[in-house]
Amino acid sequence: MEKTTSVINGVNLKRLSDIITLIYAQPELAHFNFRLSNQWVDGGYNQSVIKDFYGAGGEDTTRETPFIVSNDEPEVLLGTDLSPNPLEFLLHALAGCITTSMVYHAAAHGYKIDGIKTSLEGNLDLKGFLGLDGDIRPGFKEIHIRIDLDGDLTDQQKEEIVQFGSSFSPVFDMVTTGVPVRLSMNKKTSPAEAA
Amino acid sequence: MEKTTSVINGVNLKRLSDIITLIYAQPELAHFNFRLSNQWVDGGYNQSVIKDFYGAGGEDTTRETPFIVSNDEPEVLLGTDLSPNPLEFLLHALAGCITTSMVYHAAAHGYKIDGIKTSLEGNLDLKGFLGLDGDIRPGFKEIHIRIDLDGDLTDQQKEEIVQFGSSFSPVFDMVTTGVPVRLSMNKKTSPAEAA
Repeated sequence: MEKTTSVINGVNLKRLSDIITLIYAQPELAHFNFRLSNQWVDGGYNQSVIKDFYGAGGEDTTRETPFIVSNDEPEVLLGTDLSPNPLEFLLHALAGCITTSMVYHAAAHGYKIDGIKTSLEGNLDLKGFLGLDGDIRPGFKEIHIRIDLDGDLTDQQKEEIVQFGSSFSPVFDMVTTGVPVRLSMNKKTSPAEAA
Repeated sequence: MEKTTSVINGVNLKRLSDIITLIYAQPELAHFNFRLSNQWVDGGYNQSVIKDFYGAGGEDTTRETPFIVSNDEPEVLLGTDLSPNPLEFLLHALAGCITTSMVYHAAAHGYKIDGIKTSLEGNLDLKGFLGLDGDIRPGFKEIHIRIDLDGDLTDQQKEEIVQFGSSFSPVFDMVTTGVPVRLSMNKKTSPAEAA
């Protein structure tokens, strides 16, 4: 008579519950360190190598091959348009993080979602980047996220799910609130290392 | 006898100068709008479609095919690890934006760069995302960026170039300072639209 719905929204609830139990017992398992290295190629084109990370108590080296992701700029911004630009990647990170936060937390609450589509846009005044006006910030003035949420859910449940996104998404948190960023330069680079 | 060094660091200085002249004459040309739509697939997997944007006085539709970029989560975070996760994409956006900002502004100052490598990392306590401790933020506690800059440049010039990155990078600006984000839900989604 036991009904097992162990996977909701593609999230394995047994494994999610195991993670939470483990972290309660050993809070240090919650420490994660994500990282990458990026290499400039030419003009607005550069490439990131993304592979290992630290989490759940140790180095995670399960990725056999690294992810290689590029940035470029469109022609009007003097690039060769081989990839999205960093601002578009910021929106991509934000869209994905909001979505995953909604999906995982909805699963934990037993809310089954049938579809999520998000549309994001950001407005920017290029005078900030160009340094033509010190009163204009280089970044987006604001970002607008529109969410289409589909499922057999009440409006109140949908609002609750959207709030999971804004409350628990790491990227949403950082983009809205800001993060301390430490910038350091290695002055002793040999040409061989940088190549 | 005229010496033409019209391209430095892959940046066409004539075109950069034209952009600045145009924006001084018509400041509205500096308005850019970047955007994307993202669709949830399953669990921690979702996909962004990136194509047109607004800039330089009109819709830019020069990209013939859209860029399709995915987010996923590694197995330890209950995903299928088909793509970097949103936190890694945030670091990718930040790395690329700092680099391009250094490259373009260095070019404008006549500083020739031979190589840039950046390494980024962010530390995160998963208890924030999981909602296990309201005092812990979901996002990175801090981000560390290390820059290796190579070229026939004095230490002072290298420091100046790094400062171009932190002063003019749109993503650096947003990640350090935060941006107003407006979140709205379309409650009237029909299943056909969300599919």
